[in-house]
Amino acid sequence: MQAVGVVVEYNPFHNGHAYHVQQAKKLTGANIVIAVMSGQFLQRGEPALVDKWSRTKMALASGVDLVIELPYVFSTAHAKQFAYGAISLLHAVGCKTFAFGSEDGRLQPFLDSFALIDRNRALYDALIKEYIATGISYPKALQQAYTTLQQQFPGAYIDLAKPNNILGFHYIEAAYSLNAEIQPVTITRIGAGYHDAIDEQSQIASATGIRQALFHKQTLQHVAQFVPSTTYQLLEEWQQTYKAFASWHAFWPFLRFAILRHTPEQLTMFPDVAEGIEHALIKHAKNARSFDDFMEKIKSKRYTWTRLQRILTHIYTGITKEQLHAHVTPSYIRLLGMTENGQRYLSIHKKHMTLPLISRVAAVQNTMLALDIQATTMYQQGLPCQTIHDDYNVPPIRK
Amino acid sequence: MQAVGVVVEYNPFHNGHAYHVQQAKKLTGANIVIAVMSGQFLQRGEPALVDKWSRTKMALASGVDLVIELPYVFSTAHAKQFAYGAISLLHAVGCKTFAFGSEDGRLQPFLDSFALIDRNRALYDALIKEYIATGISYPKALQQAYTTLQQQFPGAYIDLAKPNNILGFHYIEAAYSLNAEIQPVTITRIGAGYHDAIDEQSQIASATGIRQALFHKQTLQHVAQFVPSTTYQLLEEWQQTYKAFASWHAFWPFLRFAILRHTPEQLTMFPDVAEGIEHALIKHAKNARSFDDFMEKIKSKRYTWTRLQRILTHIYTGITKEQLHAHVTPSYIRLLGMTENGQRYLSIHKKHMTLPLISRVAAVQNTMLALDIQATTMYQQGLPCQTIHDDYNVPPIRK
Repeated sequence: MQAVGVVVEYNPFHNGHAYHVQQAKKLTGANIVIAVMSGQFLQRGEPALVDKWSRTKMALASGVDLVIELPYVFSTAHAKQFAYGAISLLHAVGCKTFAFGSEDGRLQPFLDSFALIDRNRALYDALIKEYIATGISYPKALQQAYTTLQQQFPGAYIDLAKPNNILGFHYIEAAYSLNAEIQPVTITRIGAGYHDAIDEQSQIASATGIRQALFHKQTLQHVAQFVPSTTYQLLEEWQQTYKAFASWHAFWPFLRFAILRHTPEQLTMFPDVAEGIEHALIKHAKNARSFDDFMEKIKSKRYTWTRLQRILTHIYTGITKEQLHAHVTPSYIRLLGMTENGQRYLSIHKKHMTLPLISRVAAVQNTMLALDIQATTMYQQGLPCQTIHDDYNVPPIRK
Repeated sequence: MQAVGVVVEYNPFHNGHAYHVQQAKKLTGANIVIAVMSGQFLQRGEPALVDKWSRTKMALASGVDLVIELPYVFSTAHAKQFAYGAISLLHAVGCKTFAFGSEDGRLQPFLDSFALIDRNRALYDALIKEYIATGISYPKALQQAYTTLQQQFPGAYIDLAKPNNILGFHYIEAAYSLNAEIQPVTITRIGAGYHDAIDEQSQIASATGIRQALFHKQTLQHVAQFVPSTTYQLLEEWQQTYKAFASWHAFWPFLRFAILRHTPEQLTMFPDVAEGIEHALIKHAKNARSFDDFMEKIKSKRYTWTRLQRILTHIYTGITKEQLHAHVTPSYIRLLGMTENGQRYLSIHKKHMTLPLISRVAAVQNTMLALDIQATTMYQQGLPCQTIHDDYNVPPIRK
């Protein structure tokens, strides 16, 4: 059995994801698809719309054979660390290939871009330092250094201003750091772009567009055409159980409570809280009328929306810099769910996996896993109705 | 102008309190009554029913001339520290006497009990140690040591098993530690006992009885006969604004969130969290169905209801052992409200006060005061409707 890996959030799983899964098999000749999926909190620093078990069910219903969890340490990190955690896990679980989405479906520009930076690392780092010294943000400095390199060594490179391209770049980088024992392929995205609103003539919408429709129109009917029927049913079930989808808007009273419970000094325990943002967080948490109002008050050129949301995720979960920095590389393969095929794959390949496979959390003591469990506990606290789904009592989903 | 002090929580202010204020004046010949009143969190480790400003208004309407705040450090402490903070403040604000309630209205048994322990301090301490070694709780050991002393030196002593007597005892102790520059008087309590339910034939009920009636019967009419009309109006206003009176029941989702956000190790930052209670707090916070259910699960002989509630107060407000232990003696007189007479008293006596008088919080930097401000912020978070009354924008109440 041959497995191809995909790196996903499935927030929620939609028709574009189903297409990606089919194409991943087709392009690589694999007969098993393994998704490494973010847990309760995502890379943009947000709670997932519905929890990891609902999202696992969506995936298993639409072509994915195994879902393993991308630990909190990586799922809420910046692109480089996120990609490193994800690709390392796909490698550990035995994938020989992984497939990621791109705008035009060509892999070469990604490889060339990575080679451009990798071969000129010293110059690149010097340029970044130079640009940071001018007072611009770190992401902006990276971007400028990259532009300068491209001018010196012309070629067909990818545009690293696009979030999906940044992720693709770091996937390649991670695969390279694993001695290329796992090979990338890329699949042309179809339909909507990353941030596009939904288009009623189409069957493909971005997850962002679908979430916006869910939050603003408040009815599931508006998104039915863009998602498989299982996704639709699971979203409906969630809505009936919890009344609302998870979001910062819903979690806001607790997020505010968490911020205000600390002194500014204590807030610097959390990653990236420095340079006075701790004072702004407290000041504006006190008088903001809503989460959006709060964000409008604290965001700046230096502290972008995503950067702030990642900070807020850690404050909300109570997971400190010290706890996060204690972990740099995945130490387990947490199984969230499997089809019958996925289960066969596991029984054949388990003995060759380079990390322990965890199906039952209660049997394991692991400080990185403890953060995933903590993230679930805190995610649950934000939900209006407290049906207790926790990492101890939910076994891997089977289909 | 001569001032008598009273130590109060006014949770809420009732007819028994009004009687105590009149008697305090009568017995001491004072023409000014100064109340040192707990802020948002109380000695039994609970949020006050209504905030400190509403309770100040109640007091000023019924015979109290000045209300000063008992800082959080003392208002949430055990009886000895609570009493020390309160009597020190009454002394600092210029009271020559203070009046406290007792069952039979005689001071001598209090003085004798204090003398019994004070003169036999070494024996008393040795007895306590001995009894603790048998495995009983600290309060129980105190009680037994006291009984043994009484057997050795017979006399007419107070019963230190009663909460109000314990407070009275520590008031005397505090006054003594201030070189008896402030003199105690005691006033017979009339009507209901500390924990008695309300009696519909009477006009006097305990604050505990009134709170129980408010929470269980949910209508203000049931308590109207026991409180002055201003109290009634203020309770009604509060109910209209906030929908609910503050209580652990109302604050429970946030309290649980606060507990679960920490590792067991982090919970030991908070006062009195040790000996494994940190694990029990997390375990039962996860699966308790309500605050009462939670308390039933964690309480024990060693961890009594009040002791646990004090722990929970600090976890809720986020105020750590380190922050509390940095403060042992009051460092300011925080004015919450005054009548015209109270104001005249202040202008005459201000220059002789031994601590700075604070009317406007924004003008002051004080780490003990910062905890009072923090307590208000966190108290507000638990309320369903967020009308912003904070220490920066509420000036002293005037009547």
